[in-house]
Amino acid sequence: VILVVALNPALDITHRVDRVDWAGVNRPRAVHISPGGKGLNVARVLHALGTDVLLIGLAGGEVGQGVRAALSAGGVPARFTDTTAETRRTFAVVDAGRGETAIFNEPGPVITGVEYERFLAVFTTEVSRCSAVVLSGSLPRGLPPSTYADLISMAAQAGVPALLDTSGPALTQGAAAGPAVVKPNLAELSAAIGRVLTWRGWTDEDSVGEVATAAAMLRGSASTAVVVTLGAAGLLAVTPEGCWRAVPAPVPGNPTGAGDAALAGLARGLAAGHTWADRIAHAAALGAAAAQAPVAGRFDGSDFDRALAAVGVSRWEARSCR
Amino acid sequence: VILVVALNPALDITHRVDRVDWAGVNRPRAVHISPGGKGLNVARVLHALGTDVLLIGLAGGEVGQGVRAALSAGGVPARFTDTTAETRRTFAVVDAGRGETAIFNEPGPVITGVEYERFLAVFTTEVSRCSAVVLSGSLPRGLPPSTYADLISMAAQAGVPALLDTSGPALTQGAAAGPAVVKPNLAELSAAIGRVLTWRGWTDEDSVGEVATAAAMLRGSASTAVVVTLGAAGLLAVTPEGCWRAVPAPVPGNPTGAGDAALAGLARGLAAGHTWADRIAHAAALGAAAAQAPVAGRFDGSDFDRALAAVGVSRWEARSCR
Repeated sequence: VILVVALNPALDITHRVDRVDWAGVNRPRAVHISPGGKGLNVARVLHALGTDVLLIGLAGGEVGQGVRAALSAGGVPARFTDTTAETRRTFAVVDAGRGETAIFNEPGPVITGVEYERFLAVFTTEVSRCSAVVLSGSLPRGLPPSTYADLISMAAQAGVPALLDTSGPALTQGAAAGPAVVKPNLAELSAAIGRVLTWRGWTDEDSVGEVATAAAMLRGSASTAVVVTLGAAGLLAVTPEGCWRAVPAPVPGNPTGAGDAALAGLARGLAAGHTWADRIAHAAALGAAAAQAPVAGRFDGSDFDRALAAVGVSRWEARSCR
Repeated sequence: VILVVALNPALDITHRVDRVDWAGVNRPRAVHISPGGKGLNVARVLHALGTDVLLIGLAGGEVGQGVRAALSAGGVPARFTDTTAETRRTFAVVDAGRGETAIFNEPGPVITGVEYERFLAVFTTEVSRCSAVVLSGSLPRGLPPSTYADLISMAAQAGVPALLDTSGPALTQGAAAGPAVVKPNLAELSAAIGRVLTWRGWTDEDSVGEVATAAAMLRGSASTAVVVTLGAAGLLAVTPEGCWRAVPAPVPGNPTGAGDAALAGLARGLAAGHTWADRIAHAAALGAAAAQAPVAGRFDGSDFDRALAAVGVSRWEARSCR
C-alpha cells in the first residue's frame, strides 16, 4: 500500500459560465464538484493505475463530508481524522467566452493540537504497513512548517521512504529531513533556494545546469532525489544514481494536476523498486496524460500509453550530477 | 406557529476579495457562509421577531446538511425532507476594490415524485397545526408550476391562510388559487400581467394607479390581497378592505432580503389578526430595517423600531381599490 497524506484537502467547485457578468447575476451552464488538493489528486491517479493506496489526513464539517463522500464514490480508500473547523473550498469560475478562469481559494481550517495528535496516531499505525508515503500539498493553519520533516523522520524510523511535494518553509525543512524524493516545480525550487530560475529549454545547457545545481542544493541527504517538473518540457531528476531527464512528446492541455500525476508515477516506481529511468519515464508520461484530461487527478489510459511510448529518457551529465 | 415552506433552499457562500483577478488565483480576505433562499430569510426574520416558526422543505446532500446545520446553529426550527440530489449553492464574489458583486446561482437539484410525496406528508401534518403558511421562493426542477397553487388549496381546506412570494408561472397559477396574500415586486408583477410597469413615484398618480390596477388583476379571489413591494419607495397593498400605501423614511442600504423581511411582517400581522394599516406599516419597516443590515434575513431591532416610528401609512383611493 502507498500511503498518501492530505492534511489540507479541499472541495473543488467549478462553475462554467458562457460569459461572466462580474457585476451581476450569473447562471452557470455546468457545475462540477470534485474532491481536491494535491494529495487527493495523487491518490486518485494511483488508484486509477490499480495501485493499492490509502489516503489519510484531516477533514471537517459539511465540506469535509463532501470530500469523504466524493472519494468514496470514486472508490479511493480514505481514512480522515475529524476536525472541528470546516475543510476549505476552492471555487473556479471558467469564463468560456473570454477563455479565462478565476480561482478563489478559501483560507481553510485552523487545526488544533488535539486533532493533529489524533491524526498522528493514524499515521503511526498506517506508516508501519505501507511501502511508501506521499506527503503532498500545503499545510493547514495551526501546523508548524516542520510538520512534513517530522513525518519524514517518523517514516524513516519505520523504514518507509517518503516523497514530498509542497512549497515554502514546509518544503525546505521537509527536504532537509532526507526524504527519498522531493518534487518541486521551477517556482517552488526557485523560492526554496532563494534565486529565480528561468527555464530556457533543454538546448540551453547553462539553463539546465542551473536547474540541476539548484536541485542538488535541495537534497537533504545522499539518498535524496530531487525531481524538478518543468511543465510541458518534462522533468529533470537529480538522483543518487546521477541525473536523468524525461521529455514527453508535445500534447495540448493544461498543467493543473500534471505535477500530481507525475508524483504518483514516482511513488509507484519507488514502491515497486523500478529503475530511475523507468520511474521518470512513467512520471513524465503520467504528467502528459493528466495535462490532456479536463479534470485534475484523472487521465485517460490510452493517453498514458501513447505518452509512455513517446517519452524520451536520457542521462544528463553535469557537475552537480556527480 | 407560522409554517414557512422552502422547496429550493440554498447555501449562500460569499467571498470578499480586495481586488479580484478574474483571470488568476485569488485568496478571499473573508468567507461568509449562510443558509439562503427566500423562505429561509422569512423564517429567520420571524424567529428574530420572537414569532413561533417552523421551516419545512427539501434539502439534500452535504450542502443540504450545511443548510440544516446553519439553521440549527441559528435556533430556527426546521424539518427538511431529504432529497438524493444536492441542494444548490449560490456563490457571491464581492470585489471590494471595484465595488462590484458577481453572483453565481447553481441550477439546483431535480426533485423526484417520491421525494415530493414525502414532503407533502410533512406539509399535511404541519399545515393543520399552523396559523398561516408562507410559500416563498423558486420551485426546484422536477416540480410543476402548479405546485404552490396545490399547496394553497390544501392549506385552504385546512382553514389556513397562505402567503405567496414567487415569480413566473408559479406566481400566476399560485395567485389564481386565491391565497390570502400575494407579494410580488414590480418586476414580478410586470411579468405576471405581461406588461412592463415603471415606477415613477408616489406623486405620479397615473403610475401608482397603473400598479394598483396590475395588482388587482393578480387577485385570485375577493379575499386575496396583493402587496407590491417597491424597494425604497415602500409598498402598495390592494386588499379586500381597499388600497393602502406604506412609505418608509429614506435609509441607506441594499434591497437584498428586504422583500423577504416585508413578507415576514405580513405573515405575522395576518396570523395575529392585525389591521391592514398595521400589517403594512410593520412590513415596510421590516423591509427598511433589513435593507440596512449587511446580511439577508437579519435586521437590527433598533433600526426596526426607528423605521416603524417613521413609516407613513395612508389609504390610497383608485378605481381598482373599490
